[in-house]
Amino acid sequence: MRKFTADVSHPRYKSLLSRHKLEIAAANGMLADSAMIAHGRGEAFDYLLGEKTSYSAMLATENALAHLIAAKQPIITINGNTAALAGKELMQIAQALNCPVELNIFYRTGPRINALVKHLEAIKLEHGITTPILGENPDTRIPNLEGPRAKCCTMGIFSSDVIMVPLEDGDRCEALVKMGKTVIVVDLNPMSRSARMASITIVDEISRVANNMIQLIKTDNQPEIDVEFVNSKNLQESINTIAARYQEPI
Amino acid sequence: MRKFTADVSHPRYKSLLSRHKLEIAAANGMLADSAMIAHGRGEAFDYLLGEKTSYSAMLATENALAHLIAAKQPIITINGNTAALAGKELMQIAQALNCPVELNIFYRTGPRINALVKHLEAIKLEHGITTPILGENPDTRIPNLEGPRAKCCTMGIFSSDVIMVPLEDGDRCEALVKMGKTVIVVDLNPMSRSARMASITIVDEISRVANNMIQLIKTDNQPEIDVEFVNSKNLQESINTIAARYQEPI
Repeated sequence: MRKFTADVSHPRYKSLLSRHKLEIAAANGMLADSAMIAHGRGEAFDYLLGEKTSYSAMLATENALAHLIAAKQPIITINGNTAALAGKELMQIAQALNCPVELNIFYRTGPRINALVKHLEAIKLEHGITTPILGENPDTRIPNLEGPRAKCCTMGIFSSDVIMVPLEDGDRCEALVKMGKTVIVVDLNPMSRSARMASITIVDEISRVANNMIQLIKTDNQPEIDVEFVNSKNLQESINTIAARYQEPI
Repeated sequence: MRKFTADVSHPRYKSLLSRHKLEIAAANGMLADSAMIAHGRGEAFDYLLGEKTSYSAMLATENALAHLIAAKQPIITINGNTAALAGKELMQIAQALNCPVELNIFYRTGPRINALVKHLEAIKLEHGITTPILGENPDTRIPNLEGPRAKCCTMGIFSSDVIMVPLEDGDRCEALVKMGKTVIVVDLNPMSRSARMASITIVDEISRVANNMIQLIKTDNQPEIDVEFVNSKNLQESINTIAARYQEPI
């Protein structure tokens, strides 16, 4: 693996740092083969979004956090790319919400689960986080979903009322919505099936979303549930942000 | 590595097959760490283009082929992703044009060059191709370009008048244009620096481009140079194709 040498002044610093984090995660066995490709797709959409949090993404983030705070049993799920890019921040949010996190990887294998638990346990130790990590020993399944990706924990995903599932696949998102949960996804593609299925879609890069939530939690004026929030309308705003890039001649 | 089991009737068959080809190439040491991320970016743009050759992309392909046919010393360059996705087809085009191919990888290392040569030599043997493979022992440099990516062969890239460089980086594309060459790039992002720098940009997926060129070569009516071709105008057409996807409400 190449050593990470980019200076913070480099215009592509954040992008290069994200790649480096994924390379480390891949070397540690945390990622599926498709993880890098998925990240590249995200990079392309983030490029189209101008690599910053849009106004509509911030509205969705605030509303999502308000729902998590108001939930009876909130949960944040973590997969390989999420763990690599924002594992620490999401665990800090879970700590603030006093809720668990649950591993929910798509291509579930024992070694990958072990690598992820090891990664997150190290973060807990380093940052004094006590939030429980579920998902190592799933004891039930998400209904209407086939294969290993349906496995989950009764005390975690299964019983939650508000669930934040960053970088989620469309089928699982749909199955979670069918369970009656408020499903929050983070997806850079505003036209993906996950983005369109979710209750609240944050069209933004996961580490920016996590940092925005941490900042919101720290303020005195925590966000309130936006009863007028319509997800499809918010998604259209993100689509408009991208479309604006195409309306200027090159 | 997972075995490739997708059926040809699968709606994502071509996309899954491309990923599988890249996984094999990665296992064979042909790719840099960033290759999968680059492929994912391409996937996102191809999704926005509807995963098919647009009218403007076909015009650019025809014009590119006409320039290659009319060239005094044409050349096709091949990097890791290109070799994995369209190595055979590009060598067949070079054979038809009676020109060499040259390896031009960005992160040049001895083992990666060796893996690529091995891959392309196996294709030559299997398909009765005799086109020379240059780039193993570069003897000169592209002016105005720093680092190992500037290395090239006097009898190849350096002396060529028309050069097809699929999936090229912006700096090298610019340096080749400055040498006075007609530079043909294949790039799924119509707004990339390479796309904007090149003489002719084909905004399409490399294996579709290669197959389109092979079909054009086989016909009796081979394309003629389009003297009215304006690259920036053709790029704007591709941008319009993408923009149209954003104009329909979801």
